[in-house]
Amino acid sequence: MIYKEIAINTQSRREIIDITESVERLVNDLSFGDGLIDLFVPHATAALVLNEGERGLIQDFLSMFERLVPEHGKYMHNSIDNNADAHLISSLLCKSLVIPVAKGRLELGTWERVLFVELDGPRARKVRAYFVNG
Amino acid sequence: MIYKEIAINTQSRREIIDITESVERLVNDLSFGDGLIDLFVPHATAALVLNEGERGLIQDFLSMFERLVPEHGKYMHNSIDNNADAHLISSLLCKSLVIPVAKGRLELGTWERVLFVELDGPRARKVRAYFVNG
Amino acid sequence: MIYKEIAINTQSRREIIDITESVERLVNDLSFGDGLIDLFVPHATAALVLNEGERGLIQDFLSMFERLVPEHGKYMHNSIDNNADAHLISSLLCKSLVIPVAKGRLELGTWERVLFVELDGPRARKVRAYFVNG
Repeated sequence: MIYKEIAINTQSRREIIDITESVERLVNDLSFGDGLIDLFVPHATAALVLNEGERGLIQDFLSMFERLVPEHGKYMHNSIDNNADAHLISSLLCKSLVIPVAKGRLELGTWERVLFVELDGPRARKVRAYFVNG
Repeated sequence: MIYKEIAINTQSRREIIDITESVERLVNDLSFGDGLIDLFVPHATAALVLNEGERGLIQDFLSMFERLVPEHGKYMHNSIDNNADAHLISSLLCKSLVIPVAKGRLELGTWERVLFVELDGPRARKVRAYFVNG
Repeated sequence: MIYKEIAINTQSRREIIDITESVERLVNDLSFGDGLIDLFVPHATAALVLNEGERGLIQDFLSMFERLVPEHGKYMHNSIDNNADAHLISSLLCKSLVIPVAKGRLELGTWERVLFVELDGPRARKVRAYFVNG
């Protein structure tokens, strides 16, 4: 099984970064024709979202996260580590995402982008990519 | 890798459609015995849910979506396109769903159905199905 | 395709159980070297979360579920079966989770554990595991 990593250096506590071009570069570098890529996030306080990367929408995602899981809410886990909100939000998003590839191109919808969601940054993060032939 | 598409014509802005029989028909047409199907939604304002399709529960899903992400909330993205709520809800549901197939049958739980979730319809939509042998 | 089941007997209505060791045992028993495991939940009122299993955080997950989808809210489905909340919460979590395996070890992040989420217990549950080579 072919395996590659994408390294991401995040800059803020909560941040959304479009990594579509990094994933596409892997597909091109490997001359991977047809199959599936499994993108996997090996972090308990980060996640993936497959959606549009428009600047206003990125703000709307962050606002929704804060509305559903406030950073300064009361959490038991915060007596150990001050990041319960990051764990909770990530559980509502994707940890693994299987994306089709055809003729060397990601088969995404017109407005779909692979968005990396940092919830407890800034940190050095990675996304693991596994290539599965049919 | 075998690839098929399921076409769906939605009728409302927010709507949930049971596509289990369409997926089962693909499995039968292909005489696909054992393996996995990856169902992929190539739309940023639609998603999948694997759950029961009972009529009252469908209403409960729609009520939950509206409670978590109101259609007429304040969203930055709506200065560009009037559908931020659809993008946001879809990020909380599934974009790709890997379902097992054994002896030509979807290996779903008793009450599990494949539900297509339209969030910015009515539109012509599709779900992509990729068949992976073990 | 190699297929195994993990049996889980839950004790409470809502409960989170760390099944990482059971998944690792399957990988070891099969001498499965490199590839992907698809974990699939064949239940409409249970789900998986990939996250930290710290005791306080487990309570925070349960509190978030209750805040987002109250057990005693008003639900149409409850005229049929008294568990709409369980169906709704499970739709926000994972039904299928693809986890990488390398050299016979789950390639999880440092704090990531496979958590089984019971939402309408106590019940006898299972998680299906499918092993995919590259």
